Amino acid sequence: MNETRVIDIRGRTLGGGTPLICAPLVGRTGKRVLAEAATVLGKSPDVVEWRVDFLDAVGDVAVVLDLARALREAAGEVPIIFTCRSIREGGEPTAIGDEDVVRLYDAVGASRFVDFLDFEMDNDADHVRRVRDAAHAQGTRLILSYHDFDRTPGHAVLVDRFLEAERLGGDVAKVAVMPRDRADVLTLLAATVEADAKARIPLISMSMGPLGAVTRMIGGVFGSALSFAVGEGSSAPGQMPIADLRAVHEILRRACRGH
Amino acid sequence: MNETRVIDIRGRTLGGGTPLICAPLVGRTGKRVLAEAATVLGKSPDVVEWRVDFLDAVGDVAVVLDLARALREAAGEVPIIFTCRSIREGGEPTAIGDEDVVRLYDAVGASRFVDFLDFEMDNDADHVRRVRDAAHAQGTRLILSYHDFDRTPGHAVLVDRFLEAERLGGDVAKVAVMPRDRADVLTLLAATVEADAKARIPLISMSMGPLGAVTRMIGGVFGSALSFAVGEGSSAPGQMPIADLRAVHEILRRACRGH
Repeated sequence: MNETRVIDIRGRTLGGGTPLICAPLVGRTGKRVLAEAATVLGKSPDVVEWRVDFLDAVGDVAVVLDLARALREAAGEVPIIFTCRSIREGGEPTAIGDEDVVRLYDAVGASRFVDFLDFEMDNDADHVRRVRDAAHAQGTRLILSYHDFDRTPGHAVLVDRFLEAERLGGDVAKVAVMPRDRADVLTLLAATVEADAKARIPLISMSMGPLGAVTRMIGGVFGSALSFAVGEGSSAPGQMPIADLRAVHEILRRACRGH
Repeated sequence: MNETRVIDIRGRTLGGGTPLICAPLVGRTGKRVLAEAATVLGKSPDVVEWRVDFLDAVGDVAVVLDLARALREAAGEVPIIFTCRSIREGGEPTAIGDEDVVRLYDAVGASRFVDFLDFEMDNDADHVRRVRDAAHAQGTRLILSYHDFDRTPGHAVLVDRFLEAERLGGDVAKVAVMPRDRADVLTLLAATVEADAKARIPLISMSMGPLGAVTRMIGGVFGSALSFAVGEGSSAPGQMPIADLRAVHEILRRACRGH
């Protein structure tokens, strides 16, 4: 990746070599989200992702904004990713439709309580444009993401997903796919290497499930700028505890310095 | 790999899923080798490899046999790999020729002080046959190995190196190559996956140097049955401390169990 295009945010660098560790928040009530945040932040993740699709009150913009403000206060200088994952791409069933989600992103982005919005690039093209334009006008970074919880597409398709996120105006490209065998795990890593050489934005990638767990540990070597780890509850299969992931990153950092 | 073809040796299983950790012994004198063995064995490696090409007295068969006996006593039930790596494949300069090496392997194999002999498959074909026949007659396991300290050959060449070791009568196939970029690291892993599906003997593989260090940590996921780690001194670039490697294996084992 072009090193001049890293993202510096609240003292962290996304895309700077050492992958950041991000812990999800998956509470169903405001009270649970804040309790979870307290526990998770005690484990010093680099970033937290609030998966608002888990929230029962996701349809109430005022409740979401109040909670976003409280999370901002709790997180201090830890960057927050705001994500309403669709059920099509592995999210929870929610009572709100796509149009509501776009309006929710607009309201939360405008609040400046969060640092990143994560939106799926396969959403309706007009919705992607609206979320992108609003985010950029508001000064919030946009992660454009792609998920497949069933399989791993071929190398060329995966590379194109990363590059499509950049073409659509994303500040970060994220690809998360499910492997069916060990070769799929290596396909995801090889596609990340190729996309990393071509893209000018930070990339996030992972192969999911037990088979793909290894990519959460060593994806940074192959161009992934961030890895998700469990603070209290996991948001996708294969995530390991924050302390384990940090220990592996430290061992890898020493080993890669050479002898 | 066909699970019926794992190698059970002194209570360890080579090829059984969890990779074994092997620490090299690289002393230049008998005294140093034994002091090193005491330190290294204190760190509980699963296997030790005596790199006899480092020994100044490698040309004196009686000295080598005495030292092999002492190492066997020191190692207890920890399996020993006996290796005289040629300078052509990354070994130390030695005063003895190829014919002397074959005779040394014959004498050490006959002693039954060691459990494995590691011999390069690209040695003279007659030498490979003689070492193989002697090892099998003596009941010692033969690792047939291939090294390239300069580059990583293509996928098909690497797969063929593993399978050639099996065709030549090796009990274990080992391939260690140097990456020039991140794609080379993935090529070595992908070749290991393919060879693992085709071969009926345990495989050992690694990508060397700082760039390849990651394969020493996670090679087990892709079919490598053993990884080299530093007890006291390293024998090849990219090796990390035994305790670090064991910590990573344990974290990976938990993560691969799933959630």
